[in-house]
Amino acid sequence: MPWSLHLRTQSLHGPSPVTTFGPKACMLQNPHAVMHIQDPASQRLTWNKPPKSVLVIKKIRDASLLQPFKELCRFLTEVKSMIVYVEKKVLEDPAISGDENFAAVTKKFCTFREDLDDISNRVDFIICLGGDGTLLYASSLFQESVPPVMSFHLGSLGFLTPFKFENYQSQVNQIIEGNAAIVLRSRLKVRVLKENWEKKSRVDEKGIILTNGDIESSRKAMQYQVLNEVVVDRGPSSYLSNVDLFLDGHLITTVQGDGVIVSTPTGSTAYAVAAGASMIHPNVPAIMITPICPHSLSFRPIVVPAGVELKIMLSCDARNTAWVSFDGRKRQEICHGDSITITTSCFPVPSICFRDPVNDWFESLAQCLHWNVRKKQNYLSSEDEEF
Amino acid sequence: MPWSLHLRTQSLHGPSPVTTFGPKACMLQNPHAVMHIQDPASQRLTWNKPPKSVLVIKKIRDASLLQPFKELCRFLTEVKSMIVYVEKKVLEDPAISGDENFAAVTKKFCTFREDLDDISNRVDFIICLGGDGTLLYASSLFQESVPPVMSFHLGSLGFLTPFKFENYQSQVNQIIEGNAAIVLRSRLKVRVLKENWEKKSRVDEKGIILTNGDIESSRKAMQYQVLNEVVVDRGPSSYLSNVDLFLDGHLITTVQGDGVIVSTPTGSTAYAVAAGASMIHPNVPAIMITPICPHSLSFRPIVVPAGVELKIMLSCDARNTAWVSFDGRKRQEICHGDSITITTSCFPVPSICFRDPVNDWFESLAQCLHWNVRKKQNYLSSEDEEF
Amino acid sequence: MPWSLHLRTQSLHGPSPVTTFGPKACMLQNPHAVMHIQDPASQRLTWNKPPKSVLVIKKIRDASLLQPFKELCRFLTEVKSMIVYVEKKVLEDPAISGDENFAAVTKKFCTFREDLDDISNRVDFIICLGGDGTLLYASSLFQESVPPVMSFHLGSLGFLTPFKFENYQSQVNQIIEGNAAIVLRSRLKVRVLKENWEKKSRVDEKGIILTNGDIESSRKAMQYQVLNEVVVDRGPSSYLSNVDLFLDGHLITTVQGDGVIVSTPTGSTAYAVAAGASMIHPNVPAIMITPICPHSLSFRPIVVPAGVELKIMLSCDARNTAWVSFDGRKRQEICHGDSITITTSCFPVPSICFRDPVNDWFESLAQCLHWNVRKKQNYLSSEDEEF
Amino acid sequence: MPWSLHLRTQSLHGPSPVTTFGPKACMLQNPHAVMHIQDPASQRLTWNKPPKSVLVIKKIRDASLLQPFKELCRFLTEVKSMIVYVEKKVLEDPAISGDENFAAVTKKFCTFREDLDDISNRVDFIICLGGDGTLLYASSLFQESVPPVMSFHLGSLGFLTPFKFENYQSQVNQIIEGNAAIVLRSRLKVRVLKENWEKKSRVDEKGIILTNGDIESSRKAMQYQVLNEVVVDRGPSSYLSNVDLFLDGHLITTVQGDGVIVSTPTGSTAYAVAAGASMIHPNVPAIMITPICPHSLSFRPIVVPAGVELKIMLSCDARNTAWVSFDGRKRQEICHGDSITITTSCFPVPSICFRDPVNDWFESLAQCLHWNVRKKQNYLSSEDEEF
Repeated sequence: MPWSLHLRTQSLHGPSPVTTFGPKACMLQNPHAVMHIQDPASQRLTWNKPPKSVLVIKKIRDASLLQPFKELCRFLTEVKSMIVYVEKKVLEDPAISGDENFAAVTKKFCTFREDLDDISNRVDFIICLGGDGTLLYASSLFQESVPPVMSFHLGSLGFLTPFKFENYQSQVNQIIEGNAAIVLRSRLKVRVLKENWEKKSRVDEKGIILTNGDIESSRKAMQYQVLNEVVVDRGPSSYLSNVDLFLDGHLITTVQGDGVIVSTPTGSTAYAVAAGASMIHPNVPAIMITPICPHSLSFRPIVVPAGVELKIMLSCDARNTAWVSFDGRKRQEICHGDSITITTSCFPVPSICFRDPVNDWFESLAQCLHWNVRKKQNYLSSEDEEF
Repeated sequence: MPWSLHLRTQSLHGPSPVTTFGPKACMLQNPHAVMHIQDPASQRLTWNKPPKSVLVIKKIRDASLLQPFKELCRFLTEVKSMIVYVEKKVLEDPAISGDENFAAVTKKFCTFREDLDDISNRVDFIICLGGDGTLLYASSLFQESVPPVMSFHLGSLGFLTPFKFENYQSQVNQIIEGNAAIVLRSRLKVRVLKENWEKKSRVDEKGIILTNGDIESSRKAMQYQVLNEVVVDRGPSSYLSNVDLFLDGHLITTVQGDGVIVSTPTGSTAYAVAAGASMIHPNVPAIMITPICPHSLSFRPIVVPAGVELKIMLSCDARNTAWVSFDGRKRQEICHGDSITITTSCFPVPSICFRDPVNDWFESLAQCLHWNVRKKQNYLSSEDEEF
Repeated sequence: MPWSLHLRTQSLHGPSPVTTFGPKACMLQNPHAVMHIQDPASQRLTWNKPPKSVLVIKKIRDASLLQPFKELCRFLTEVKSMIVYVEKKVLEDPAISGDENFAAVTKKFCTFREDLDDISNRVDFIICLGGDGTLLYASSLFQESVPPVMSFHLGSLGFLTPFKFENYQSQVNQIIEGNAAIVLRSRLKVRVLKENWEKKSRVDEKGIILTNGDIESSRKAMQYQVLNEVVVDRGPSSYLSNVDLFLDGHLITTVQGDGVIVSTPTGSTAYAVAAGASMIHPNVPAIMITPICPHSLSFRPIVVPAGVELKIMLSCDARNTAWVSFDGRKRQEICHGDSITITTSCFPVPSICFRDPVNDWFESLAQCLHWNVRKKQNYLSSEDEEF
Repeated sequence: MPWSLHLRTQSLHGPSPVTTFGPKACMLQNPHAVMHIQDPASQRLTWNKPPKSVLVIKKIRDASLLQPFKELCRFLTEVKSMIVYVEKKVLEDPAISGDENFAAVTKKFCTFREDLDDISNRVDFIICLGGDGTLLYASSLFQESVPPVMSFHLGSLGFLTPFKFENYQSQVNQIIEGNAAIVLRSRLKVRVLKENWEKKSRVDEKGIILTNGDIESSRKAMQYQVLNEVVVDRGPSSYLSNVDLFLDGHLITTVQGDGVIVSTPTGSTAYAVAAGASMIHPNVPAIMITPICPHSLSFRPIVVPAGVELKIMLSCDARNTAWVSFDGRKRQEICHGDSITITTSCFPVPSICFRDPVNDWFESLAQCLHWNVRKKQNYLSSEDEEF
C-alpha cells in the first residue's frame, strides 16, 4: 500500500498548533502573516490542458542510454503525437544523427542550445533519462516555473530518478492522464553580486555614468536557481577559506575550513551528507548549512527555517579568494566585497513520485547511500550463554 | 537591532511555492488539505485577560537560587498581586520554610504535588529559575495547552533559559503587558502501549472481561508530552538494542546499537547532538531520528516532516528488552509486543524569547555548545611567504 | 600473493629512525630503555612440542553449529588423537549429550566449568566456532599466556574469525604443523579497586588489621584481561556519567556523556567505531580512548601510545555511580573512590591469520563494516557534457 | 611534576609481549626481523659537540615578531657567539634591513635562498618563531637528517610550537647545554612518479636512450619529506576525485570524494581532524588515512602500522585529474599513470619538548582544538529532585 493511500488524520507538514496558551494567553493574530500551505502529503499533479510538448534530457556520452532514448522519443512523437524538445548537443552524437532508422523521429525534434535559447515557456513536461545530474540540469534550464519532471534511472536508482524504464509507456501514459503524486523540491534562489564588476559597470564605455536602474538590471543576470546546493570553497588554493555567514543581516559565524555548503533538503543527501550532515526529507521547509572540513571541531551542520535570507562574503581578513558553484556548475571566483545571497525560491521543481514522497525517499536512502543496510551482528556481546 | 524588527518580505517559514508548473500543469487543489500557518517570524504573545496566577519553578538543591527565588516571589505576590503556585517539595527546603522574613510570602503560595494535583487549568503564566531542566519539568506538568513560559538562567545561558535575572522586574512587567516574541517549541505526543498490561487488563480482579472502552481509557493514561526527546536504549544491558522503526505504518529500518533518539528541533541540541545529529532551529516543522552508537557505519541521523507518525517496537529477534524515557524521566522497560507511537503534538510550549527566535538560538549555540567558537588559525598553510 | 610473501625492506612496525640530528646532535643513548621488538610482519607460529590438547569453543544455542562442532571434535579426537577440552555447559545441550553416535567422542572430552576450573596451563591450542564472541570468551579464560587461537566463522566473516569451515581438516593440519602467520592482538590489563571493599578488608573478621601484603593479594583478584574494550557508562541511569580520566597519574580530561570506551586496536572496530572512532590495525601499539555521546562537541577520540597507564574514577561532583564492563561481561558498579587502572597487557592473544595480518584486516573491514563498499556514483556533477 | 619524571615501569611504547603462547607454542624467532627501539618516554637530546650554527626561522609579514626576532638573534650572535642562518627573504623586510641598530647583527648572518642553497649539513640547531607553519617550513629544508628544533609561539600555543618566548634566554641555554626531552615526529617519505615525464626522460634530446641510473637520479628530485600530511584532492574541479589506494602493492579501496589525506600522527591534529579523524599521539608508530567528504557513508578513517607502503594513483575510470600537496606546499597535478608512493621516513623531526611528549600534547589539544573544553552542564536531566 503506497503511503499516499494510508489514512491520515494529520498532514505530512505537521499538526496546526493550538494558539491559546493556558487560560488567558494566546497568539497575537496577524492575518497578514498567515500562510496557506497545501499539505505535502496530498500534493498531486493535474493538467489544465493536455501536455503537448515534452523536453527529453539524456545524459550524454552514455551508450547504454541510446536505445531507451530512441524508443522513448519514437513513442512520444509517433504514439503520443507530442512535440519533443532535445538539446542540439544531444543530436551531435553520430549514433543518433547517423541512425537512418531514427531520422524520421529526429526530423520532428525541436532543438535548442543551452544559455542561448529560452524554452522555459514552451515545455509542458520534462522526461529525464540517466542519473541525478539530468534533473539538476533540467532545473538549471528553468529559472522560474518548472514543468513537471519524470525521471528514469537506467542502471541504479538515484535520489532524483525514481522510475524504472521497463514499463515506461504505461508510466508515461499515467502521468499524462494526470494522476500522480508529486514532491515539490524546494530550490534556492542565489544572487551573486560582484563588487568589481559593479564598479566597472557604473561607468559605460563612453564614460557615461549609468543610472541605478541599469546596474540593477545587470545584477539580475547573476541569479541562479539551485536544486541541490551552493558550495563556497577554497578552490585550487591550499589555504583555508575564510567566509562570513550572515542570516537576515546578522553575522552568524565565520567559516574557516575547506568551505561551506548551503543546501536544500534535496541536497542534504548529496554533497552535504558527505560533509557530515544529517539527511532531511524534501518536504521539510528548511535550509541546511554544512561546513566542509571546518577548522573548529564544534562546528556542526545546522538546519534553519526555509524563510531566512543567508549571505556569504569573504571575511575581511581572508588571505585568499573563494570559489562558488551552483549544483556543481558555473564555478566562479569570489573576491573581497562580493556577496552571495541565498533564499528559498518560490519556484520548486515538481518531481513526479514513483510511489509517494515518503516511500520514494526511504527507498533511495537505502539504494543510494546504503543507509543502515547491514547484516545483523553483535559487537557488544559475549555473556556466557550467548557468545 | 533585533531580528524581529528586521524588514522581511518573506516569512520565517519560507515562501509559498507557486503551484503552476510550466504552461499546462498545476497542483491539484484540495481545500481540505490546506493548512493555515502563522508565520513563526511574527508569533507574538497577547493576553485575553491580565494574568493572575503564576507558577514559579525553581531548580531544587541549588543554594544560589534561593535569594532570586525569594525576591521574585515577593515581587510577584506583593507588587504584582499575583497568585504564586509553587510545588510543595520546594517549600520543604528549610532555607525557605524556616525563613521568617519570607513567611508572609510563603503563606500566600498555592502549593501542589506533582502527579497528584492537576494545576493545568489554573496557571496563567510560568516562570522558571534554573537550568534547561526547569522548562522540561514545566512541560511535563501540562499535557495539553501550556501557559507562556519565561525562563531565567542564573549562571550560564541555557538553550531554554534565555533571560538574565538582573532586570527581572522590568522584564516580567513587559511580558505581563503582553508584548513579547514567542517561539512555539513543538512537542512530541508519545503513546506507550504495554502488551502484557493490556492483556491483563482485559480481565479484571473478579475475572470479569472488560469492555473495549475500558481498555481504551486505560491506554490513554500512558501518554506523554515530550519537549526534547524520546530515548529508547539498551538500559542496563550490555547487549545491543534491536528495535524496529515504523513510519506511517511502514517498517523503515531496524536500529541496532545503543538505542535511538526521536527528538523535536528543540531536542536536537540536547542528547541528539551528542549522538551526532545536526542542529535544527525550533521553527522548522520536523522530527529528528538519531541512532545512538549504531552498529552500521552508514546509519546517519534523518529529519522527517513534522506530520509523520512513528512507531518503535522491539524487533522480533531482539534478545533483550529495551528501555524508554521521556525528556530523561519516567524510564520504563519495553518488552516484546509493546509499542511506542510518536507524533507531533498540537500543544507546543510557548517559550518567551529574550530577543527573537533566531537571535536567541544562535546565542545559545555559541554559549551552550561553543558552536564554532575558536581562535583563528591555519592548519593548511606554509606557502613560502606565509608560514 | 599473500602480503607476507611480499618483499619488504621495511618492517610492518615502521623503520627505525636515525638518531643523529644534524651535524652535532643525537639521541642520548639509554640502553636500559631500548626495546627489542619482533617485526609484526614476520610474526609466525611455531611449536616447541606437538600440541596435544585443544580447547574447542562453540557458540551455544546456535543449531547451525552442531554438525560442524561434532565433525571437528571427531576429527581432533579420532584422527589427530588430541585431547579435546569442552566447557561443561556445551555438553548440556541434549543435541550433543543425547546423540548416541557422538557418545564415543563425548566420552573422551575433558570438561571444565568457567570460573571454577583453571585450564590455563593445560591447553595447547584453541579452536573457536561461531562469532567474534567466541574469541572474546576464549580470551577471558586465560589471564596470562594464551595458546594460539584459530577461529572459524560459519556464516559471515567476523573481525576475529577469519577461517571458513569448509576445508577445516587441511587448515587445522597446517596449523598443527606449525606454519602460520599470527597477529598478536594486544589486550588491556585492567585493575578495579573498590574503595569500600578495600577499607573493609583492612580489618578482618576478628578485627585484626591486615598487612599491606594481604590487601595487595586481594586486590589482584579484581583484575581482567580485555581483548576489545573496557566500557564505563551511565548504566541504567538517565544522567550523564561524569568520570575523570588520568594518564600516567595526571588528570587529562573529564568525560561527561554516556560514557567512555578504552579499547585495544582490535576493539577499535567493535563498540568504539560505533561511537565514532577511527579504525586501528591490530599491529599498531596503541590504546584508543573514545567518548560515548559526549556532551562537548569537540571531544574527539584520541589514540595514545600503548605504554601509558590510564586511570578512570568518578568525578568528585558526579551525581551518579557509573558502570564498567570488560569485553561486554562482568558488568559492575563504580562508586566514588573506586578506580579502574588500565595498561597494555604483556599477554596478547596470538590469533592465527587466514592469510596475513594486513589482508585479513581489510577483508574484515569490507565484510563486517561495509567499509567504503559502494556503487560508484557522482554527487558533485552535472557539467554540461557529463550530467 | 612533568611526565618525564614520573616513575615508569613500562615504556611509553608499550610492554614487550611474551612470546610463548600456552604450554607448547611460541613465536618463531627471526633475529633479522627484530627491531631495537629506544623507548619514546626516555628520548632525550644530547650534543656530540657544542652547537655552533643556528637556523632562525621567522614567520614573515608578521610585525609582532620583529622585536623578538631581533632580540633572539642578538642574543645568539653576541652572547652565545653562534653563527645565525637566516633566509635571504627575511632580510628583505625593510624593518630589518633598514634598522641601523640591528645592522651589526645582520652583518654576521649567513643567508641562504630556499631551493637554491643547501644548508642541510651546516645547521646544528633550529629555532622557530611563529606558528606551526614555521616548523613545517623547517622540515621542508631538511630532506634527510634534521637538527633539533625549538619552536616558540608568540601569541597562542600551537601544536608544534610549545615554548613561550618570555624566558627565551634561559630556555635556549638549557637546550644548548643538552638536557631536553624530545619527541621524534615521524615524517612521510613521498615519491611522485610522473608517467609522462618518465617516458620523456627515457630518451634524451638527441634520441639516445638513457640508462636506468639516469632515470633513477631524476626520480629522486621528486621526493618529499612530509611532517603533517600528503593531500590528494580534486583541486579546482567540481567533480569527485577518484583515486585508488594501494597498501604494500594490494588495492585496498577506491576513494571517491573530495580527496584523501595520508598523515603522520603529528598531522592527525591538522587537516585530518577537520576531515573527521581521531587524534593520534606523535609517539604512536602509525600512518593515518582519512577520506575528505567521501561519497560512501561508511568510509571511516583508518590507522595502519608505520611500516606499510602506500601508493595512490588515479582510478582508471577517473574523469578528472587530481592534485597533490605536501604539508600544504608544492601543489601539483596528478594524471593517469602517475603514482604517489608513501612510506614512513627514517628521518624524523626531533622536536624539543617544553615539558614532555605527553603533557605537551594534551596541552596543545586543549589550547588549539578546545578539546573537550566546556562548562559542565546536563542534557539528560530533570529527574524530579534534580532539574
